[in-house]
Amino acid sequence: MDNETRKSNSREKIVNESLKLFSLKGFNNTSISDILAATNMSKGGFYNHFKSKEELFTSVLSEARRVWRLQNLADVEKEDREINRLKKILANFRDRYLKDSVHFPGGCVFLTLSVELDDQMPHLSSQLSDGFQRTKALLRGYLDRAREKGEIRADVSTSDVSEILFSGILGASVVYGLDKSDGQLGRNIQALIRYLESIECGARRPRRDSG
Amino acid sequence: MDNETRKSNSREKIVNESLKLFSLKGFNNTSISDILAATNMSKGGFYNHFKSKEELFTSVLSEARRVWRLQNLADVEKEDREINRLKKILANFRDRYLKDSVHFPGGCVFLTLSVELDDQMPHLSSQLSDGFQRTKALLRGYLDRAREKGEIRADVSTSDVSEILFSGILGASVVYGLDKSDGQLGRNIQALIRYLESIECGARRPRRDSG
Repeated sequence: MDNETRKSNSREKIVNESLKLFSLKGFNNTSISDILAATNMSKGGFYNHFKSKEELFTSVLSEARRVWRLQNLADVEKEDREINRLKKILANFRDRYLKDSVHFPGGCVFLTLSVELDDQMPHLSSQLSDGFQRTKALLRGYLDRAREKGEIRADVSTSDVSEILFSGILGASVVYGLDKSDGQLGRNIQALIRYLESIECGARRPRRDSG
Repeated sequence: MDNETRKSNSREKIVNESLKLFSLKGFNNTSISDILAATNMSKGGFYNHFKSKEELFTSVLSEARRVWRLQNLADVEKEDREINRLKKILANFRDRYLKDSVHFPGGCVFLTLSVELDDQMPHLSSQLSDGFQRTKALLRGYLDRAREKGEIRADVSTSDVSEILFSGILGASVVYGLDKSDGQLGRNIQALIRYLESIECGARRPRRDSG
């Protein structure tokens, strides 16, 4: 293994272990010492890669986004209709993303960091906020294409639906993080999937629930 | 002021200041020393009222619920229709509850605690989880009555709608806590209000948005 490979490996290790620690303990409660202990590295080794914990934050967020896409976009393009791709994302969120305790042992890291970091640390919180906007835009993209292709009703506001989907999965993360109830998570995501079905063209009226 | 009144006042002070501290710093990061400093009390004074921080947690949660109801249910009963009462709750959530920086200087305390406390502290997290279920049941109550009175379509699943509303406001709290954007919060809540309008009997089809 040459020097460059070793350097890149140790950088990767810092990012991966920090992602886990941020998910478990948050940003402020994760010390450089915690990271050194988890990676078995020296202080000098760490600062060789990152000038500060703030600089590390950006790299960790970028890795977290990679995992987000890996889990939530899995097999999405195999679906033939735009609206079914969106339903697949919701199913992936329930079955893959929120269950990914390897990358996120303490639950969704975006949620943990969002609740912890507010406008007191604008240079960090704005990175999270931008990511939220991009995620909502991603969801809206599927909806806009679904409307263009006549899969959902022309009178549907794709802006409203993307707001509801995005808040919906964020809220589901909060509840699942708290109670780890698969049943509750299932009801939550199923309600969003049925909502999408209700805006499809030629949607059957949903059956009235028994309650 | 007699002894009983003084005792009750100092207990109230501990609960109020702890609520603020939990909202700002979470449960684990708030020490008994922080609470003593905020209340200007002695350690003995504190333990005279609460055996432990865990015992205090329950009282703080109960006070937080009182504030939740105070803000979110304000003027709700003045509305004549059940569905309008629900819309009023959403508007209160946007205009009163999330703006209540007196009681919640660090944002919604239920959210902060939910993300912090997971199944590692089941005796505390179950209290939060139960509260979430009760809130969802409260929302569903309005929907069930709205359906009985013919205000919303008979084929609507009130269970699904209450899931979507509850996740929706929880997700809105996360985003607002992060970016403090009134514009974003407005779009978020308005999407939920228009969703309610879309399930009303004789709802006009919403106008297609420009995007």
